[in-house]
Amino acid sequence: MPRSVNEFGLISKYFTPLTNACAGALGLTDDAALVSHEPGYEIVVTCDALVCGVHFRSEDEPEDVAARALRVNLSDLAAMGSRPVSYLLALAAPAGITETWLERFVAQLALDQKTYQLNLIGGDTVMTPGPLTLSITALGRIPKGQALTRAGAKAGDRIFVSGNIGDASLGLKLLRGELESLTKTQATGLKTRFLRPEPRIALGQALIGIAHAVTDVSDGLVADLGHICALARVGAQLNVSSIPLSTGARAALDMAPDLLPNFLSFGDDYELVFTAPAAARDALARIASSTGVMITEIGEVVDTPGVVVLDTDGSEIRIQKAGYQHF
Amino acid sequence: MPRSVNEFGLISKYFTPLTNACAGALGLTDDAALVSHEPGYEIVVTCDALVCGVHFRSEDEPEDVAARALRVNLSDLAAMGSRPVSYLLALAAPAGITETWLERFVAQLALDQKTYQLNLIGGDTVMTPGPLTLSITALGRIPKGQALTRAGAKAGDRIFVSGNIGDASLGLKLLRGELESLTKTQATGLKTRFLRPEPRIALGQALIGIAHAVTDVSDGLVADLGHICALARVGAQLNVSSIPLSTGARAALDMAPDLLPNFLSFGDDYELVFTAPAAARDALARIASSTGVMITEIGEVVDTPGVVVLDTDGSEIRIQKAGYQHF
Repeated sequence: MPRSVNEFGLISKYFTPLTNACAGALGLTDDAALVSHEPGYEIVVTCDALVCGVHFRSEDEPEDVAARALRVNLSDLAAMGSRPVSYLLALAAPAGITETWLERFVAQLALDQKTYQLNLIGGDTVMTPGPLTLSITALGRIPKGQALTRAGAKAGDRIFVSGNIGDASLGLKLLRGELESLTKTQATGLKTRFLRPEPRIALGQALIGIAHAVTDVSDGLVADLGHICALARVGAQLNVSSIPLSTGARAALDMAPDLLPNFLSFGDDYELVFTAPAAARDALARIASSTGVMITEIGEVVDTPGVVVLDTDGSEIRIQKAGYQHF
Repeated sequence: MPRSVNEFGLISKYFTPLTNACAGALGLTDDAALVSHEPGYEIVVTCDALVCGVHFRSEDEPEDVAARALRVNLSDLAAMGSRPVSYLLALAAPAGITETWLERFVAQLALDQKTYQLNLIGGDTVMTPGPLTLSITALGRIPKGQALTRAGAKAGDRIFVSGNIGDASLGLKLLRGELESLTKTQATGLKTRFLRPEPRIALGQALIGIAHAVTDVSDGLVADLGHICALARVGAQLNVSSIPLSTGARAALDMAPDLLPNFLSFGDDYELVFTAPAAARDALARIASSTGVMITEIGEVVDTPGVVVLDTDGSEIRIQKAGYQHF
């Protein structure tokens, strides 16, 4: 951090504008922020930490770091069916960080705030001798008692997923210089899917009263579905042929069929995976149409615990590594 | 982190018990937590990040790290006049951290939760190649429209501070092996004051409707009072002879009078400094009595901007470094 800028200068220059003068932020001049909400609503709150070299790459652009840090939190809000309202940012910055980096980081936060309709209301900026570390706490609102959770899956429920699965795993491979034979358009699309997750906020809200259990695909489709199953002491059967794949992912799979398990175990797609009764199919088709987000039925909730992935011939595909392990 | 423990195991073993099964935490099995509150209240939210080697020492006991991380946040809630309700913990842990360390860390959090009446409702645990980094977001509640802020000081207001000032600066010196001539009792007391800040929660709540402007002494008395003055475009005159000092601090000052500026510029006392009209003196005396927290009048708010510290003869004492600079 440039020595010419002290913490208060830094806050007023870079972070206060991100409050958009919303009342609760108190201009970031106070010890804490205020959050009020209308009667009949409750607040949803989530917190994700990202460490440079672990959750993003040191060569990532500041815009990508900003977008990722905010959006992984918004994805959690989406999975609960809530609408984003505000967030707090704790930034532990190494001495080498420049004002240019900060300017670009903050500019992307401003763009994302506009897209997802929320404001910064607080946080902390500190120095670290270690890698850049970001911790965001995001707050959303939801009608009281309506929050979607991971619990509630029932045997017989169908399993649905939004968007495509596997793009993020390919995007990371491409960023690492692998998979060179894809077209430039395909490669760019996949990289963007990794670098700029799209929280499914409108979809999450639309699933209230329809989905039985919801989570976002952050650890890997099989692992995240496993969490849903474990909570309800049920299992899941996924049909591999139903897993929605992008054109780029299909092209990659044609060249290297052994990529498939990676699609199912790699997190970071930030799609929503959820269970709902078969009778909800029509409603889900309407929601897909109104939100512009594809929804695909990929399997069924069963009594037997565990997540099983079935090949087109009914045989089981073994997924060695179910999902991302944080430790 | 021991490789035998994955993130979900870690959460259920160490962190889920800290929720005390409160409803909003959803057993820490979900993407986010829920916060509801009674009509007529709003939520106060604050976030502080602590980095090993910057905000605490690598040799600090896990209990001290836990207490410090939680209490500096609670001090912010206290300064707003709010009552703690819940918190989220983002823990970025280096590979070397042991289960024993975690057990002790969590045990202290449990103790502090009981003392300050709040529960863990969420967070994140990640690995870092850097130093242990903790980011806590604490939530409190306050009657709507009643929050105390740093703004609102008026010329003619008296300036008050809780407890004693300077102890934390001495505590750190003692932990570093300096100031050897103090008695063991004095030394222990001062070290504790540095290691275990005491958020003035009851006092903060009692100041609602009485104080015009409040903050906690985290950056240094002069610096923190400077923030209050800057917001109201006023100044402050402090009488050095009025600054409340503990027996240990007085003994240290007798031996080394040049320690005084350090008392006024070193943060970490986590006392409340506030302005109130002179007419509030009686009410404040009653509050001191009911909360058991000493309140001392130390100066006056004046029209001329800037914080001036006056010696007993009326001359100005120069404070070279007004407070802790985070960058």
